[in-house]
Amino acid sequence: MRIYLAGPDVFLPQPRQWAEWKKAVCARHGLIGISPLDDAPDHTAGPGALPEWQRIALRNEALIRSADAMIANLTPFRGPSADVGTAYEVGFIRALGRPVFGYSTTAMPFTQRSRDFAMGHGGALAGRDRSLRDADGMLIEQFGLTDNLMLEAAVVGSGGLLIVEDVAPDTRWSDLSVFERCVQAAASVLRRQAMS
Amino acid sequence: MRIYLAGPDVFLPQPRQWAEWKKAVCARHGLIGISPLDDAPDHTAGPGALPEWQRIALRNEALIRSADAMIANLTPFRGPSADVGTAYEVGFIRALGRPVFGYSTTAMPFTQRSRDFAMGHGGALAGRDRSLRDADGMLIEQFGLTDNLMLEAAVVGSGGLLIVEDVAPDTRWSDLSVFERCVQAAASVLRRQAMS
Repeated sequence: MRIYLAGPDVFLPQPRQWAEWKKAVCARHGLIGISPLDDAPDHTAGPGALPEWQRIALRNEALIRSADAMIANLTPFRGPSADVGTAYEVGFIRALGRPVFGYSTTAMPFTQRSRDFAMGHGGALAGRDRSLRDADGMLIEQFGLTDNLMLEAAVVGSGGLLIVEDVAPDTRWSDLSVFERCVQAAASVLRRQAMS
Repeated sequence: MRIYLAGPDVFLPQPRQWAEWKKAVCARHGLIGISPLDDAPDHTAGPGALPEWQRIALRNEALIRSADAMIANLTPFRGPSADVGTAYEVGFIRALGRPVFGYSTTAMPFTQRSRDFAMGHGGALAGRDRSLRDADGMLIEQFGLTDNLMLEAAVVGSGGLLIVEDVAPDTRWSDLSVFERCVQAAASVLRRQAMS
């Protein structure tokens, strides 16, 4: 089973080294990890003619299409939510009808993260209906979830699992133990699906 | 042509009123606007059995599948990037191979927004290779784009257009002029596509 490894890990220093480490974890659990940095089969007529950012995006999309499932690093990135590039990729594989698994190394609930962010940007206001809004009047979700409902619903609805575990803040991006727990869970679910 | 109106506008006070206003703009340009708040055709076996957040997500996905194209509000939301729920939906319709148009009422480039965010969270560091990193060592994209490359590449790659125009900060969420410009551009592109 080929599993696409989505996440802002591509922004780490030495991203190829991290990709290799993650692939090694996948291999230990019988899965083939696919990194966004991998080469993809021919995916455009003339890749040379496109700017780098478009070539990267088309390569990632081709790699996702080539995968059987996805594991997404949904750890909050520059704000209360996951990286938008990762969210985009979760939506992409979800539309293809394939399972998506997620993990986060930050356990603080989304509602609290959003409220904390709002407190640092003009305040948060509770309405009489117990709703919560930021200084722009924009609602703060209170579903008790890990992030925006579309992300968690995609994971659950696709038959995947979300693994959330707090690690020391300075190891939020370097920790691979939560990732490994997610890989292990994914391998088990995918094996069960393949047998049924 | 049915066009799905993605964006964090659903978090505004009176979101149904905003949806009606946006639909009226679409109608003026010959398009049928679909709001995430609209009823969707039967999309689950037993919707009553699912929690509200899952029902909302399944409804949105069913509405996107029913649409011919999308207009996404990519205005930065609680951080340097667009709302992750919107990014998810852009990925979803992109995987379906349909055109997606985007707009933002904030013209400051993504690189600058990300650097400003990093400056407020431990600093930003320029490498000898002119790369830019936040305090976690995570790379800041410098492609001169409006947001994460996956989003802009989806719009461009799908044949859509991205309309970015600065409005007064306190009208960032209430302004509909940039949206209307995007609807007008989308109507023109979709009409051209339909004729060819």
